[in-house]
Amino acid sequence: MVSGILSNINSELEVVVGKSSQGDWKVKGTKGLTAAEDLVLKTFRVLIADLCQQFNGGHPGGAMGMAAIGVALWKYVMNYAPHTPDWINRDRFVLSNGHTCLFQYTFLHLTGYKDMTFEQLKSYHSDRVDALCPGHPEIEHQGIEVTTGPLGQGIANAVGLAMASKSLAAKFNRPGFDIVSDHIWCMVGDACLQEGVGLEAISFAGHMRLNNLTVMYDNNQITCDGPVNLTNTEDINAKMRACGWNVIEISDGCWDVLGLVEALEASKHSALPTFINVHTVIGVDTSVAGNAVAHGAAIGTDAVASLKQLYGFDPDRRFVVPEAVRDFFKELPQRGEAMVFRWRAIFDRYREVYPTLAEDYTRRHGGDLPSDWESLIPTEFPSKATATRASSGLVFGPLAESLGQFMVGTADLEPSVYMNWKTKENFEPPELGTGSYTGRFIHYGVREHVMAAVSNGLAAYHPGMFIPVTSSFFMFYLYAAPAVRMGALQHLQVIHAATHDSIGMGEDGPTHQPIELAALYRTMPNFLYIRPGDSEETAGAWMAAIKARHMSSLISTSRHALPQLTGLTRRTGVARGAYVLEEAPQKADLTLIGVGAELNLAVRVATELRTRHGLTVRTVSFPCQRLFEQQPPQYRRDVLRKHTGVPVVVVEAYAANGWERYANAAVCMPTTRFGKSLPGPKAYEFFGFSVDSMVTRILGFVNFFHANPEMRVEFVELTSVGDE
Amino acid sequence: MVSGILSNINSELEVVVGKSSQGDWKVKGTKGLTAAEDLVLKTFRVLIADLCQQFNGGHPGGAMGMAAIGVALWKYVMNYAPHTPDWINRDRFVLSNGHTCLFQYTFLHLTGYKDMTFEQLKSYHSDRVDALCPGHPEIEHQGIEVTTGPLGQGIANAVGLAMASKSLAAKFNRPGFDIVSDHIWCMVGDACLQEGVGLEAISFAGHMRLNNLTVMYDNNQITCDGPVNLTNTEDINAKMRACGWNVIEISDGCWDVLGLVEALEASKHSALPTFINVHTVIGVDTSVAGNAVAHGAAIGTDAVASLKQLYGFDPDRRFVVPEAVRDFFKELPQRGEAMVFRWRAIFDRYREVYPTLAEDYTRRHGGDLPSDWESLIPTEFPSKATATRASSGLVFGPLAESLGQFMVGTADLEPSVYMNWKTKENFEPPELGTGSYTGRFIHYGVREHVMAAVSNGLAAYHPGMFIPVTSSFFMFYLYAAPAVRMGALQHLQVIHAATHDSIGMGEDGPTHQPIELAALYRTMPNFLYIRPGDSEETAGAWMAAIKARHMSSLISTSRHALPQLTGLTRRTGVARGAYVLEEAPQKADLTLIGVGAELNLAVRVATELRTRHGLTVRTVSFPCQRLFEQQPPQYRRDVLRKHTGVPVVVVEAYAANGWERYANAAVCMPTTRFGKSLPGPKAYEFFGFSVDSMVTRILGFVNFFHANPEMRVEFVELTSVGDE
Repeated sequence: MVSGILSNINSELEVVVGKSSQGDWKVKGTKGLTAAEDLVLKTFRVLIADLCQQFNGGHPGGAMGMAAIGVALWKYVMNYAPHTPDWINRDRFVLSNGHTCLFQYTFLHLTGYKDMTFEQLKSYHSDRVDALCPGHPEIEHQGIEVTTGPLGQGIANAVGLAMASKSLAAKFNRPGFDIVSDHIWCMVGDACLQEGVGLEAISFAGHMRLNNLTVMYDNNQITCDGPVNLTNTEDINAKMRACGWNVIEISDGCWDVLGLVEALEASKHSALPTFINVHTVIGVDTSVAGNAVAHGAAIGTDAVASLKQLYGFDPDRRFVVPEAVRDFFKELPQRGEAMVFRWRAIFDRYREVYPTLAEDYTRRHGGDLPSDWESLIPTEFPSKATATRASSGLVFGPLAESLGQFMVGTADLEPSVYMNWKTKENFEPPELGTGSYTGRFIHYGVREHVMAAVSNGLAAYHPGMFIPVTSSFFMFYLYAAPAVRMGALQHLQVIHAATHDSIGMGEDGPTHQPIELAALYRTMPNFLYIRPGDSEETAGAWMAAIKARHMSSLISTSRHALPQLTGLTRRTGVARGAYVLEEAPQKADLTLIGVGAELNLAVRVATELRTRHGLTVRTVSFPCQRLFEQQPPQYRRDVLRKHTGVPVVVVEAYAANGWERYANAAVCMPTTRFGKSLPGPKAYEFFGFSVDSMVTRILGFVNFFHANPEMRVEFVELTSVGDE
Repeated sequence: MVSGILSNINSELEVVVGKSSQGDWKVKGTKGLTAAEDLVLKTFRVLIADLCQQFNGGHPGGAMGMAAIGVALWKYVMNYAPHTPDWINRDRFVLSNGHTCLFQYTFLHLTGYKDMTFEQLKSYHSDRVDALCPGHPEIEHQGIEVTTGPLGQGIANAVGLAMASKSLAAKFNRPGFDIVSDHIWCMVGDACLQEGVGLEAISFAGHMRLNNLTVMYDNNQITCDGPVNLTNTEDINAKMRACGWNVIEISDGCWDVLGLVEALEASKHSALPTFINVHTVIGVDTSVAGNAVAHGAAIGTDAVASLKQLYGFDPDRRFVVPEAVRDFFKELPQRGEAMVFRWRAIFDRYREVYPTLAEDYTRRHGGDLPSDWESLIPTEFPSKATATRASSGLVFGPLAESLGQFMVGTADLEPSVYMNWKTKENFEPPELGTGSYTGRFIHYGVREHVMAAVSNGLAAYHPGMFIPVTSSFFMFYLYAAPAVRMGALQHLQVIHAATHDSIGMGEDGPTHQPIELAALYRTMPNFLYIRPGDSEETAGAWMAAIKARHMSSLISTSRHALPQLTGLTRRTGVARGAYVLEEAPQKADLTLIGVGAELNLAVRVATELRTRHGLTVRTVSFPCQRLFEQQPPQYRRDVLRKHTGVPVVVVEAYAANGWERYANAAVCMPTTRFGKSLPGPKAYEFFGFSVDSMVTRILGFVNFFHANPEMRVEFVELTSVGDE
């Protein structure tokens, strides 16, 4: 139990019991527990053991060790409504150690979430196709705030949820009207404190003073490989304090419900985010207690039986939930509905006193953008050559300025990515003097991974309430990729503005020049990778990304200036993925595809082929493969004409992989090497993207294609490297 | 200057001058410097300013601020030999903040590295194709230990270099023979302390007690977006101490050469890795000093002129290096050669006293494996169905056990990845009692990214001295991807053993089931993604990866048991990327490609199509696209027969993207959704990989193909999803 005087709560609160050593600690048995609590903990653990044993799989040990934390949270501390699970002012719970999902599923069942029936609970690790108990929590299901599993993501999502709440509270709360007052609770294991994205999240949340966030550390000192001290011997409490967190330690986390309740409550009144270091025992009270084998496998029938005997349960009966345990949680749905009722009553008053704010809140609660948002996008652009990263700024700036839904961040590249706007304010803790929580521009620091993961949290707070935008160089979206994927997987609308997207970025060299990265994002499910070729197409790219309310997108732009292909490019064309720029009579010699920063090169090559070599050349702009795949087959065929025997060649300064579906050949980057540090134009030239060089190779290919019809099934890479 | 009594050196050394606040500090002018040092610092800064101004680009400010650190290192502290740059016992210097590369290039020039002529130095940001001064340091060039640029990678590489040195020292050093005694020096900026991979590296290095590693923090409190406190307000010194580091602070890092020398020397005698927090001023003494604009752009002609005036240089002359500055560094090549001479003399004695050790050392120094290494690989395998992850263990275990070159690690999945071996010892600091530095099995913790980045450092220590092996679930190689890429980019031989590589991994669900990830690794330059189908092919995969001495590889294996396709699969076939499993007469109805865990399904489908439907079906195993691309065109055509009009269908439980080059259709995963949490066999069934379902769809496709010759140019995805 936590010692110290908890009524004396302030930002410096720190209650330490015992030491942070990895020494043993004794389970205190039922000390300090009511009879009902004692029975609940024992029932919970036996049930977890049964559920894993049933199909001989799953992760029992962690969930068993964390039982008391769950009782403290769901019974005593969290504000939520099992029968109105989407109530917007509910506290959010994130299980960052998602493999212990049975922990959450079981509490969802006991506390009365309607979908989580006992039958459903028992489907964990079954082959039931409509199960609500997958191997990791999934956002689609009642009571699950974010999908977790890949470690470190959940804690970063929780940071995003806490920022969402701070942002809404700063914008909408008024004296006497705490419309937004939810708290974010996040459970982590050892792994989330080892993963880089988790460490980025900790540092960032500490800086942001997110005192509406409590992280509970299931400190069982056991990982798959064995004791944590095989790989980690740091002083975690000191590290968290150095990162700006309030730290509380609970020595007997398996049983000390009261201490946990006091600690959790205390954390709601801290000036800093709170880290509760809860010492637990994995697989507590079983024969594998404190052992790595308790982590990721059923504990075995003998061990289950022994546990039941120890706890006074009948070893021959499975899935027993005594009536007293059901009674213990019975009041919770009703309590939740009362919370919802009170909140709605307050909101009704609020609507009378602050009608404009309430209207804005209600619109965003409905997930809507103002109906005229498209009118904010420029209809035309300056005629001078413009980098598409700058075009992105021209297109998005007015949207960001006007629409409170957009939370826009950058991984320390504000001067390069053009994602800021005139009147922007930074999202910062007010006490630092660099912004406030009403700000919507986020300096993520050089932390691309957490930028994307926090953005997922912002988007997950409530559907459509926020549209997070991230920004960095395209190459660094490889750092962010695990979180970008999680956004797509969860159908979260997050827009990633990636600049410097080709060898045209120049001097920074091969480490910064993407070659293979587009292949990942073009293949990623439920994701749009859009590479516009000029300002007009950049407008189309943003429109497509904003309209994709249940997908994540990446808009991929150039560092260097690109000519405006005015009269050729069309924003409506971008919406279809690919479209004909320059048409030709039925019998063309070539369909030439240009993409993104290389679109203008394709247009120039086509002109050369027409004027100097007499070829009939069609040109196609192809900013997004996924959008093109969504078009009807006839449209796709009309655009490419590949099936009519016209050779199709694509020009793009990436590896060709992925273009084989649409083209017969590619002027592309080789996959035998990476890029090269040279000024942008010189880099293009070095890798054979000068117009003359491309014309020569494409002519050669067209001749080959017509002369060797049987070879048309082979895809040809037309690469050229300066020094080879 | 560092205060305190430095002769009193111990593990607790900590000398703090000033505070870690972000307040201003005054440049001390020439206090404490010799006249020569003073001139060197000023010349260096003016030269940096000139070099960036010349082509109006580059990163001047950081390099200028770090000048004194460079003088302390290259003149006074580091052991190295400019004229024998690959001397194996040299200290290694890693510039983790790689954008400040001019810092390193200029010291390489001044200290006498022969390739780095003054003309070369002046090629920074030029369009010179054979320049040695790319925008970030590149490993191919003299004096550069690792390629850096993507932030956080360098510090993780430095950890790997330090582990390499520890490992060699533990194995080869004997009383009186410190054959291995090099120290690793790593320069970082704010960003490397924000990036997750950097934070993983810090935690891991602290645990590993790598006291042969010194990290110098160029603490100028400025990033691209402005002051660091926009995004980071943590107490970095306290954080480093919590992570097990020795911390030294230098308050006047722009000028305090003597203090820096004392701190650097002290760090060599610490029991812990050392973090030197060096307070500097970005763009010191210029009109943009302390300003973000000094970071990533030339400072402007006026500012350059003013700096020259301040320092007493002629504003009209560029690239001036006074003779006194040349003299200051003149002795270094000779000093270096003396070090090499002494080391060789000691090694000659060592060879006499410890001939076996010396022979082993010399062989590894030459980068060679024992000539009979292939004989360690089993020639046959048990006939029972075996997961290819287990096959990996059968193949690699004997190699790991016998060959000291292999340093094998796992990101906390030892029980799952089968990369351990009977007599393995953990690489651990001896004082923890969990292993020693002679151990070759590394528990990286749940830190996939640093696992790959550290492995790059191990491989970069000396060509071929180590072959690092990493292991985790395939999906988590998305976390590791930025470092995996850096290994491929640097031609480092690192082998990544990735398990659980398809939906067959089952219950862990969509977050753990790869769909799009193979597209990334198949496209990555200089990289082998190899997906074997049974034990025999797994042998082939390891042989291919081990023979690729200048590439990185990923061996992608199944969680679930796969039947042994004995008599069909061939390890020699894997070496060619793809090969015919079952041939057919000239006129076949179908070439059916199977890949990895789905190879056995393709074989079963082929049998069904032959026996029940009378089709003539050829089967092809296709474990590695990159190796196949390296084969002669005729071989490739003979394997696929696509050009003869035979329809080619591939069976793989990934997105089809990338197979269009080889096949006309794919039985594959859809890209409209991610996977599903179900037991492995059920997951295969859910996504249409039951034999019956595949047979039906492939038959339909073959009929379509023959009936619609004009449609043969279109690629067809044969997907099926259970609940749609």
